[in-house]
Amino acid sequence: MKESKDDLMDIKKTHDIGTLSPSMKGQKVVVGGWVEDLRELGKLTFLTLRDVTGVSQIVVAGTENLQQVKDLTRQSVVQITGAVQESKARDFAYEIKAEKVEILSRAIHPLPIDPLGRLESGIDNRLNARALDLRNQKTASIFKIRHNTLLCIRKVLTDRGFLEVNTPKIIGSASEGGANLFSLKYFDKQAYLAQSPQLYKEQLTLGLERIFEISSFYRAEKSHTVRHLTEFTSVDIESAFMDYTDVMEILEQLIVSVFEHVEKTCIQEQKNLGIEIRKPKTPFDRVTYRQAIEELGKQGLALSFGDDLLDSHLRKLGEIHPGFYFLTEWPLKLKPFYIHEKEDDIEVSKSFDLQYGYLELSSGGRRLHDPVKIKARLLEQGLDPVQFEDHLRAFDWGMPPHSGWGLGLDRLMTVLTQIDNVREVVLYPRDPERLFP
Amino acid sequence: MKESKDDLMDIKKTHDIGTLSPSMKGQKVVVGGWVEDLRELGKLTFLTLRDVTGVSQIVVAGTENLQQVKDLTRQSVVQITGAVQESKARDFAYEIKAEKVEILSRAIHPLPIDPLGRLESGIDNRLNARALDLRNQKTASIFKIRHNTLLCIRKVLTDRGFLEVNTPKIIGSASEGGANLFSLKYFDKQAYLAQSPQLYKEQLTLGLERIFEISSFYRAEKSHTVRHLTEFTSVDIESAFMDYTDVMEILEQLIVSVFEHVEKTCIQEQKNLGIEIRKPKTPFDRVTYRQAIEELGKQGLALSFGDDLLDSHLRKLGEIHPGFYFLTEWPLKLKPFYIHEKEDDIEVSKSFDLQYGYLELSSGGRRLHDPVKIKARLLEQGLDPVQFEDHLRAFDWGMPPHSGWGLGLDRLMTVLTQIDNVREVVLYPRDPERLFP
Repeated sequence: MKESKDDLMDIKKTHDIGTLSPSMKGQKVVVGGWVEDLRELGKLTFLTLRDVTGVSQIVVAGTENLQQVKDLTRQSVVQITGAVQESKARDFAYEIKAEKVEILSRAIHPLPIDPLGRLESGIDNRLNARALDLRNQKTASIFKIRHNTLLCIRKVLTDRGFLEVNTPKIIGSASEGGANLFSLKYFDKQAYLAQSPQLYKEQLTLGLERIFEISSFYRAEKSHTVRHLTEFTSVDIESAFMDYTDVMEILEQLIVSVFEHVEKTCIQEQKNLGIEIRKPKTPFDRVTYRQAIEELGKQGLALSFGDDLLDSHLRKLGEIHPGFYFLTEWPLKLKPFYIHEKEDDIEVSKSFDLQYGYLELSSGGRRLHDPVKIKARLLEQGLDPVQFEDHLRAFDWGMPPHSGWGLGLDRLMTVLTQIDNVREVVLYPRDPERLFP
Repeated sequence: MKESKDDLMDIKKTHDIGTLSPSMKGQKVVVGGWVEDLRELGKLTFLTLRDVTGVSQIVVAGTENLQQVKDLTRQSVVQITGAVQESKARDFAYEIKAEKVEILSRAIHPLPIDPLGRLESGIDNRLNARALDLRNQKTASIFKIRHNTLLCIRKVLTDRGFLEVNTPKIIGSASEGGANLFSLKYFDKQAYLAQSPQLYKEQLTLGLERIFEISSFYRAEKSHTVRHLTEFTSVDIESAFMDYTDVMEILEQLIVSVFEHVEKTCIQEQKNLGIEIRKPKTPFDRVTYRQAIEELGKQGLALSFGDDLLDSHLRKLGEIHPGFYFLTEWPLKLKPFYIHEKEDDIEVSKSFDLQYGYLELSSGGRRLHDPVKIKARLLEQGLDPVQFEDHLRAFDWGMPPHSGWGLGLDRLMTVLTQIDNVREVVLYPRDPERLFP
């Protein structure tokens, strides 16, 4: 049985539940939400009604109204017109005495997952029913924190004079080496999905000086870890007249601001998730690559300068440096062609990763702005400068020295929420197996 | 001759030029920027130096410093260490007496376009040299206004309780009919680029109630007009417990807020563009489709109920209703399957477009939330409900009544900046011919 009574009905709420309080006793309100619970008690039925802002108790009495809620399923959508009154219930400071009960939409049981989270469901079942999973207050809290994180990032960068830009995601050449790009047919041409805004953001420093972008990017990598997605959200900045140490400081201050902002604004969300967000200690450790391989050597993991750090090495370093730390000055040959060398140690790059324990959150550095050097580096790395002609032209037009970084928003969200799997903090994650819903 | 002297040099500015003033007389500063002009006068050379915040006069004297700027090309990047002093020049309230001049990057002439805009270049040449084009203050102003527009939109929607979300752009089924989708190979599967977040945002009202997204979307349409791009930025909202008239009001208030915000915060940018942004008159006209065809009939353009409005019709309506107006209550059969009918006139839909003259900026409406009705509409429109199974499942989980709209940000930017071609307000536009840079 499926029915809906939306026709000719005014569906506008007068109040979000979160804005109601016992002081509004006697006031008439219209609220709407989802029935979380439903208990008959003598001639009354009590509904627990939740909307995105809070939860309230509804008291239903009278033949007609009781008839309405008689067969009502949990998670159905109702609209209640009624008056605020004191409540005798232990869990509620006030309740709403229903004058009118309207069923807007009936939930059909059995539901694929328990939206209250009392019965735990596996991540795959939850993602397959993501819309319903968001009725679980733990899940909803993740995305409220995500919203506040984005808000804070934009505010901090705007306050520091960065302009938000949108660069193209459909690109004509396989930039940055071309590995792991999704390709598509663009009318009669071949195109690719951008895996970062790297080349565009560098060019933009020439005109806009300090820019940032927050957007989805794409990597066609068959990774099956808890920290890789094929579609991910990246926060990117690039700034003229800054060295790598300058943008590291911006990154550190940004991370701290995000933690402070979320700690203060997302109090209920922290409770729902059972976490306490605390501002990280500053300054973050700065560990050079040379220091890192020395530390690893002492732990019996022998590495030579130039060796890449594997997951096992990063896990060991994460034990030595728990929390946030910068891993700096990597061997130049491990870094992309656009990264600048140190002037006094040319095998070393002006680069850094921001780590949280073993997890890489961000990567950045000073960039080359001399096209002659870039061409040499492209050849060294087996790349064809002709493929980069469009990009390299801009370096003849007054390219300033510049630095920047990219920060994986989804990974940052796993750190903030203390959740391991990046799929939990993305609404509809994409990985090699998951393309639906 | 190509050289760069960045090595071992501290490239950090102490001040943006826009923060300097005559009151800082005697203060030592380090500024960096691009040389716009260069004049020798006796034993002095005067540079006009611009950064993203402003422009200043630099006075260069002394053998060594004069030698540095002797062959300097315009648009080269320099860093100046010097002291603020009074200026006798008519155009400058102060100037900087250079103690040290450092050339960070030389511009190689001839440049592909005149970055000062004194010689006008065609849009194609400008887009091919977009980074340089951003040194034209008119162009830079467009993107400063764009940044402020985005800022204002996010603030208004956040203040009204909307959460920002990110929905996937790689989608597994050809939703909304499937016409004009870019397709790509997703490992061993077929995938598409999303042309809107429509289905996701509707589902999300079930858990998050009020959500918005600002993102790039994709349309594989061979349009060659000044208002179509294949990659465009869309602002989308969706809200539970709202009817179409409610989200129309939100849209109207949002537009007004954007105009007010940009009017106040982008004063120099309006001067650069030679425009005056003024808050539009409210309320916007609400013209029903039936009224519109009546108005067109009086102008000799005979239409019957159900006929779509062509460009020529919209141009005529734009003459009758200049500026912003809503075109409402379109025939249901002209609207997508998810649009709700009017209860008292079932051939008519609860829908609207926001027009600016002939230009469609936004489209929205009340959505169906009864899956039985949606399935019937899908079949009517020749679509296969099986293709929408993933989506329709969510309608059994307590789907609230909901409404929303999508707003073309790039088109809104053309209205704000009073520029006709949407390519001007997008950094790296994509159309059927343009895939580079």
